Amino acid sequence: MPESGPEPICKPGDSIFFQDGTLFMLDQTALPALTVFIEHTTPEEVIESIKRLAVRGAMAIGVAGAYGVLLGALSARGKGAEAVADAARDAIASIGASRPTARNLFWALERMEQALAEGAAGSADELVGRLHDRADEIALETIETNRLLVEAGQELIGEGMRVLTHCNSGPLAALRYGSALGVLIEAHRLGKGIHVYVDETRPLLQGSRLTAWELSTAGVPYTVIPDNAAGFVMKQGMIDAVMTGADRIAANGDAANKIGTYGVAVLARAHGLPFYIAAPGSTVDLACPSGDEIVIEERSPGEVRYCGGQPTAPRSAPVYNPAFDVTPAGYIEALVTEKGVLRPPYEKTLQVFR
Amino acid sequence: MPESGPEPICKPGDSIFFQDGTLFMLDQTALPALTVFIEHTTPEEVIESIKRLAVRGAMAIGVAGAYGVLLGALSARGKGAEAVADAARDAIASIGASRPTARNLFWALERMEQALAEGAAGSADELVGRLHDRADEIALETIETNRLLVEAGQELIGEGMRVLTHCNSGPLAALRYGSALGVLIEAHRLGKGIHVYVDETRPLLQGSRLTAWELSTAGVPYTVIPDNAAGFVMKQGMIDAVMTGADRIAANGDAANKIGTYGVAVLARAHGLPFYIAAPGSTVDLACPSGDEIVIEERSPGEVRYCGGQPTAPRSAPVYNPAFDVTPAGYIEALVTEKGVLRPPYEKTLQVFR
Repeated sequence: MPESGPEPICKPGDSIFFQDGTLFMLDQTALPALTVFIEHTTPEEVIESIKRLAVRGAMAIGVAGAYGVLLGALSARGKGAEAVADAARDAIASIGASRPTARNLFWALERMEQALAEGAAGSADELVGRLHDRADEIALETIETNRLLVEAGQELIGEGMRVLTHCNSGPLAALRYGSALGVLIEAHRLGKGIHVYVDETRPLLQGSRLTAWELSTAGVPYTVIPDNAAGFVMKQGMIDAVMTGADRIAANGDAANKIGTYGVAVLARAHGLPFYIAAPGSTVDLACPSGDEIVIEERSPGEVRYCGGQPTAPRSAPVYNPAFDVTPAGYIEALVTEKGVLRPPYEKTLQVFR
Repeated sequence: MPESGPEPICKPGDSIFFQDGTLFMLDQTALPALTVFIEHTTPEEVIESIKRLAVRGAMAIGVAGAYGVLLGALSARGKGAEAVADAARDAIASIGASRPTARNLFWALERMEQALAEGAAGSADELVGRLHDRADEIALETIETNRLLVEAGQELIGEGMRVLTHCNSGPLAALRYGSALGVLIEAHRLGKGIHVYVDETRPLLQGSRLTAWELSTAGVPYTVIPDNAAGFVMKQGMIDAVMTGADRIAANGDAANKIGTYGVAVLARAHGLPFYIAAPGSTVDLACPSGDEIVIEERSPGEVRYCGGQPTAPRSAPVYNPAFDVTPAGYIEALVTEKGVLRPPYEKTLQVFR
């Protein structure tokens, strides 16, 4: 029986929206060739989409996870409040095991856990309603947070700036607005005349597939470069600043983001360019003292052995495929958040998220 | 009429060989999926193979260019010595315009030009014979040079070293032995127990397609990584040194090589790792004072917009696709050549190639 909750926060047009008991998510693996929404009615389907990166981007995963828990709760609705709570807790545990690095997923799951804990009493319907409200709240907060962040970031982006970005941190990664790419799209909307250089971001090419697609859609002038060209374009004076998103930020400011971000930060330093990270407070993990404690997900060799379905290496080539790396705080000139632009020492300034 | 010259220097088994008036070259674009030799009987066919990278690698291109000139000469054999010389000169001009960056092609073409100039008199057959001898000499010298270089490089590769390489500089790129990858394969053959980390080298993946294939064939332990992971593996202490080939080395030691090499050199410096280049004297361009004067080839956007035939970016995405970058001499700890390992100041030590 389709569940008809309150007016959905994320609406058709967003890359993720929940309607009549179904979670719709734009299949990011099919972009830019195809625009296809996948329907999810169970937590398992949500986990599958998270694992195969149909939904990706730290904040988008958080929202997907929250609605995934709601789907678990809905499946037990007819069996009483206790069954609903059990199903939601099972979903929290299994969704939490889907990807280890991005902080936002755990932030969202902790919020859903709290919603469960807050009112032990009540009917199954009441519990489902509370979980639905909380998932909507997470989505709404994600959108509002990104709106504030995108505004805050404007102080770093001047007229005519040429900014290099890595991976994807636009609306797709964040429901609406986005983080780093959101800042850049907003700068364009404000008429700053910027130009964005886009690292294609192997192995999964989120830069050329997703960021280029979003910039193209938003009418922002951009140029895609192979990741390998980042150093060369900096050396030629073609870049003024670098801005990327993040998946987890430790208490000392060390930031995990898509593999290759660290290399770009080192190159920015070598060329005297500022390296900025833009990410919301839900990415900040104050319980994590430094980047050394961040678990780095290792993904399948197949992502490297094949491209576009064609073999690009010997079939059994040994591959090391870490999905993220950590950029030490010392390389990060500023952190753009919904609470403003933070500067070092991050041990201190990140306390705004305590 | 097939031309039957002396015993061919490059034999079936090499990636390039000349037999009965036909230049056979292994199609490097088809590797590792297919092992296909392309037959060339005109300079135009050779140019086509150079442009689309069926043959690539600075030294391999040089040898291909030399035999390409011979093919031009052969086409005019029946029309007298003057026609042969004209055809050879036309081939030199058109082959010389095929790719701008690698020095070795011009070195080989200059040698063919000299062979033309050395004996103005003589029959068409004598001239063809002289050009054939010179092309064979270039091939033979390339092989012998690489053999010496590979020996010389051993002083840099110690027991159990873990070496990162970028792009392909093995036998495929150099006829036999290879330069940087040749040094590493030889180190393995000598029982040094090394491990090679292979940057996949987007956009054309010469690392994962060709270097991994050559290492696999030679039985050398290796691991393919996305280019983006180079910084992360260094930061984790997984690498002891970096060694790559080069396409042109300026008089001051600045070295052009596959796009991304400069980034790897900057990362090596940031991690206190030695960065070595291995390349023969035919790569050295003493007439070029510094890297600023090296022409960098820009290749088609299609190499970045597609991978494995699949679109990986919006179809009309603006792309910047430089094929090479320049690593300043200051980043290069040593240059491995057939005349030994050279150290800074390169202005002085490179004079061994005057």
